[in-house]
Amino acid sequence: MDASQALPQVESFLQQHADRFVDELKDLLRIPSVSADSRHRDDVRQAANYVKERLEAAGLTAELVETAGHPIVYGEWTGAPGAPTALVYGHYDVQPPDPLDRWETPPFEPTVRDGRIYARGATDDKGQMYTHIKSVEAWLQTVGQLPVNVKFVIEGEEEVGSDNLDRFLEEQKERCRCDIVVVSDTSQYAPGIPAITYGLRGIMACEVTLHGPSQDLHSGVFGGAVANPANAMSRLIASLHDDEGRVTIPGFYDDVVPLTPEERQGFADLPFDEQEFLDGVGMTAPFGEPGYSTLERRWARPTCDVNGMISGYTGEGPKTIVPHYATAKITCRLVPDQDAQQLTENLRRHLEEQCPPGLRMEFQDYHGCPAIVSDPTSAAMDAARRAIATAFGNDPVMIREGGSIPVVSTFRDKLGVDTLLLGWGQNTDNLHSPNEHFRLEDFHRGTRASARLWAELVSST
Amino acid sequence: MDASQALPQVESFLQQHADRFVDELKDLLRIPSVSADSRHRDDVRQAANYVKERLEAAGLTAELVETAGHPIVYGEWTGAPGAPTALVYGHYDVQPPDPLDRWETPPFEPTVRDGRIYARGATDDKGQMYTHIKSVEAWLQTVGQLPVNVKFVIEGEEEVGSDNLDRFLEEQKERCRCDIVVVSDTSQYAPGIPAITYGLRGIMACEVTLHGPSQDLHSGVFGGAVANPANAMSRLIASLHDDEGRVTIPGFYDDVVPLTPEERQGFADLPFDEQEFLDGVGMTAPFGEPGYSTLERRWARPTCDVNGMISGYTGEGPKTIVPHYATAKITCRLVPDQDAQQLTENLRRHLEEQCPPGLRMEFQDYHGCPAIVSDPTSAAMDAARRAIATAFGNDPVMIREGGSIPVVSTFRDKLGVDTLLLGWGQNTDNLHSPNEHFRLEDFHRGTRASARLWAELVSST
Repeated sequence: MDASQALPQVESFLQQHADRFVDELKDLLRIPSVSADSRHRDDVRQAANYVKERLEAAGLTAELVETAGHPIVYGEWTGAPGAPTALVYGHYDVQPPDPLDRWETPPFEPTVRDGRIYARGATDDKGQMYTHIKSVEAWLQTVGQLPVNVKFVIEGEEEVGSDNLDRFLEEQKERCRCDIVVVSDTSQYAPGIPAITYGLRGIMACEVTLHGPSQDLHSGVFGGAVANPANAMSRLIASLHDDEGRVTIPGFYDDVVPLTPEERQGFADLPFDEQEFLDGVGMTAPFGEPGYSTLERRWARPTCDVNGMISGYTGEGPKTIVPHYATAKITCRLVPDQDAQQLTENLRRHLEEQCPPGLRMEFQDYHGCPAIVSDPTSAAMDAARRAIATAFGNDPVMIREGGSIPVVSTFRDKLGVDTLLLGWGQNTDNLHSPNEHFRLEDFHRGTRASARLWAELVSST
Repeated sequence: MDASQALPQVESFLQQHADRFVDELKDLLRIPSVSADSRHRDDVRQAANYVKERLEAAGLTAELVETAGHPIVYGEWTGAPGAPTALVYGHYDVQPPDPLDRWETPPFEPTVRDGRIYARGATDDKGQMYTHIKSVEAWLQTVGQLPVNVKFVIEGEEEVGSDNLDRFLEEQKERCRCDIVVVSDTSQYAPGIPAITYGLRGIMACEVTLHGPSQDLHSGVFGGAVANPANAMSRLIASLHDDEGRVTIPGFYDDVVPLTPEERQGFADLPFDEQEFLDGVGMTAPFGEPGYSTLERRWARPTCDVNGMISGYTGEGPKTIVPHYATAKITCRLVPDQDAQQLTENLRRHLEEQCPPGLRMEFQDYHGCPAIVSDPTSAAMDAARRAIATAFGNDPVMIREGGSIPVVSTFRDKLGVDTLLLGWGQNTDNLHSPNEHFRLEDFHRGTRASARLWAELVSST
């Protein structure tokens, strides 16, 4: 196949069908596939079926693979024997949409405003993932073949820890064999500055509950004579940082690989307007670990954040009780070479040791994965760089990101391959927040970059 | 009137009509008069009307007095010129019923089990307050008159700070003139050990909110670079106690009147089984300010309790966000001579000073009242002691209580009179908790004690 003849056909197809692609994405976004909420179990499956159908319509074979949780959609086209094989990973599940009252339009009624499509999952990850299905369709419906073999693994549990993906990759190792993994679940660096992400933070997540009295108690009759779970929880959480903002979980920084001077310089050279960053999130001042820049804090330093907490009466007005329990959800972002499992155990013990008399602590370990940093100069990275430069009209910058994509380390461990993290959206697209959106221009450029990537990858391995 | 002739008639009436009294109480308990929740505004008014009708049926004149909030029910019978006047204070509003799923039977469907009536408000304060209406009815429907004049002030905002009661007492000072106030909103000391409460703790209450980013943020993309309101709130709350459990609000203990050795001895002499106390609330260990017994901690030492807090995602499973706000409801129980207003201001400033950069603190002062301690040897106390001894078959013990009844200091300030705190229920009746209840035997004995009190009070002033 001559890519120089094939590509114009492919790109013409992408242009002609651009509106249909958006309509299809809307159909997918309408499905409230919230994996964390068991009430949405059927919706999650419906989203899986939709993805499977779209893969088949594009010209791949596809199926739903059952797991102990939500199904995995597997698809493939392997008509290029001898050529490299790329595996596209993505996820069709989404974060919970609450707080609902802060959405301008409902989270599962996709709406286009100012060239952006608004919906939960618009960018994370339905919209970004969908670009690869459409780019493959463009090749197969025009040229009739792809320059490389492609496989798709689209899961439905990314937002709840990808619990069943490991077993799938283990059991279907042969089927998933590939030379490179392609994931679009990160972001561009900024509008007009596309990026390839060569590093991700890891994560550990848990939920801690302090059980106190058998029920809420009158704070007048009992207050002062029994341990208050809400006060105690606050003390536990407060004990996770020192006064300067450093994390105080025992051993937390022991295995942290320091940033190299070159990396720090690279970060410093990136255009970054701190005031604009703060304005964008509605904050008046920066905050964080002393001695590090905001980009370093976000990309390459570990954290410990409460994601949610609840105790006692939270309705309107006062209620004079000692709550019978308090719960907090806690996540730490990790960097190389922190060990999620060991640090989770250290955290559990640290909290347990401080639990006051009379309270019982319950600790639920949700999931964890290590951080990952890849070689930014590999042949596959070069291929991606060329594809992106053409589609976006700008060379991508090499960055790290603060989020975690546990599957990247899984692919390295189970399949022995690297992952290309190619983000088409912006990190201001409100992923995980109300009013999540995705610029349609980015959606279309991402699709074009994906289509180019298949040609560029031929010579990359 | 000869009380020795009148009392047998009165007591016979009470016995004959005991079942009807319970049925009427059930009608009142069915009305969800939750004053803290604006959705129950109409229900609160309905409860007020019910109380007014019952006062009229008992033979008093009664009316609803409008306020800026919920109405006050005022009733009176003043046919004993020259005799003392007692003013019964009570409240027809109730605490919110949540958590609803912990009630064995619904909070507003009163149910009798094992000789107890279960419902929100069963003891606090509908059930206890109602005894006085029935005792007055017994006198007026049999003897045709009362030994003393009686007035009733039954309000609908006790559970939300009695905001409009002060103005009512100010404006209707003449009408409310009396020699003694009678309140049944406390408890017996224990089953079989009735009590007169001569001291109450005061209270200050507030709600604190830390506003952070303009919306929930992805904890991977932003975590570590912006102040987290939930972590910050935990630090603020943790800063309210030292490691030993003493409150660290500036000036908190400055004005505390220490317990006298005699009082400490009096408390120590009361039968008290700490293990039984702990078992009763489902706790495995005591907790509190060092150097004080559990009774002292509950009755005569100040506290600082979180009553509720919420931030971020509190649904099922993990959600990796930095919450955009965190809220905590905080109350302090106060003892003589702590100043609620001054300490609320000290608390506000203490929290404000520690609010980290980038977060904005909002502070709502709910309400406060000072603690109160009365002379346990007054003539009115003696009258109450005799009435209770007869009705309950046991001399009452003189105790203090940990709860707050702000109106007691209001009556002292505005009307210059003392208050008899005569509790008919038990402090294990789950007031402010799920499965609140009231022993019917206590309801009936309370009614009888109230009927006797009117006769005993004649010679008390």
